[in-house]
Amino acid sequence: MDTLNLKIIARIYNDYSHKFGIPRQSGLVNENISTIVFEKDFKNEDALRDIENFSHLWLLWHFSDNDNKEWTPCVRPPRLGGNKRIGVFATRSPFRPNPIGLSSVKLIKKEKTKNGTVLIVKGADILSGTPIFDIKPYIKYTDCHPDAVCGFADDFQDYSLTVEISEELLNIIQKDKQQVIIDILKNDPRPSYQNDPNRIYGMCYGGYEIKFLVENSVLTVKNVANITKP
Amino acid sequence: MDTLNLKIIARIYNDYSHKFGIPRQSGLVNENISTIVFEKDFKNEDALRDIENFSHLWLLWHFSDNDNKEWTPCVRPPRLGGNKRIGVFATRSPFRPNPIGLSSVKLIKKEKTKNGTVLIVKGADILSGTPIFDIKPYIKYTDCHPDAVCGFADDFQDYSLTVEISEELLNIIQKDKQQVIIDILKNDPRPSYQNDPNRIYGMCYGGYEIKFLVENSVLTVKNVANITKP
Repeated sequence: MDTLNLKIIARIYNDYSHKFGIPRQSGLVNENISTIVFEKDFKNEDALRDIENFSHLWLLWHFSDNDNKEWTPCVRPPRLGGNKRIGVFATRSPFRPNPIGLSSVKLIKKEKTKNGTVLIVKGADILSGTPIFDIKPYIKYTDCHPDAVCGFADDFQDYSLTVEISEELLNIIQKDKQQVIIDILKNDPRPSYQNDPNRIYGMCYGGYEIKFLVENSVLTVKNVANITKP
Repeated sequence: MDTLNLKIIARIYNDYSHKFGIPRQSGLVNENISTIVFEKDFKNEDALRDIENFSHLWLLWHFSDNDNKEWTPCVRPPRLGGNKRIGVFATRSPFRPNPIGLSSVKLIKKEKTKNGTVLIVKGADILSGTPIFDIKPYIKYTDCHPDAVCGFADDFQDYSLTVEISEELLNIIQKDKQQVIIDILKNDPRPSYQNDPNRIYGMCYGGYEIKFLVENSVLTVKNVANITKP
């Protein structure tokens, strides 16, 4: 036995319609709501019995977007400016030997729908449609280490941009998506600290396309378009 | 794409030679030392660059012992006396659709050996020889939730037995394994709260066989044998 074959048990759906802009770790954008819908063979309400007694869950999911790329021993974490090389096992990079992501999310509720019983969660910074391999309860006495030392991740814990957006542009976005979009922008979606203050970036979330530029640590929104309108 | 094929990247080796007695969660027995040895295709020192800057790691591993068993929607957590049925996704039970375990461990050091560069970790409550699929750094700002509510796991956070062992029996065990063995016994290795005070259980760890009985919340060690002696 040299391999293990994983089955897709569920898929996650949310407003992250494109890869660009998705925060690089779970929980950075707390207000993003996702729905976990189980695949046909795993639509079994019993398997979710009492899960609502847990506030947080682990998701094991497929870095499906990177499926055909080879793993590399060293990666360049975007938070380090894309210059420093770090061992892949010292990062959460998708380019690993086994492309499995690990994210903790907040469980909002379990809900009966015509698609079976689904889970509604907050803070999953995962592309919509991504396959899920496992869901586990977060168990504080084994999973929570407030004293952990976290290498380069410690240095960037408080990193964020100041976001400037006019009232007029903000009002194009529906109320319950405004904060999520601001949080995504705060987290600096640019690839590897590109530093051209004249470059205009575009990011999609929940049916909106946001155009912005970044100078020093200030991100200015230049345009918002509702791209779902016919 | 309905499946993902995982490759074994490493195996973990330690004193847990038998399944019986292994604590049911990582970190319950903190002093157990394990060595993670990489498989031939993954013996690559670059992949571990800077990992020593993290104090804790996640291991994704194979519940290889349960490989041929079917998953069941409901399981009976041993901590609940084996009577109450809970959904498998509300537990860390091995009998899941994809038999992957998730454990956080403390990284002690990275070491060059004739077997390649290995990782020495503490607190992995995993059977010796178990295949590892992934190693990730523990990142506090996304993984640590001190406010998490953890269902039935909260109720049993402080559960432990009082262990009674005579000086004479304790001294049969080599010094650096005494505390680990006491910690394992404190965690009540009996299956599902069996409650027969006359039943003698046997548990193996690190070359010792420990015989004990349990009455109410007191575990008394009756015999210790060094089973590695010729």
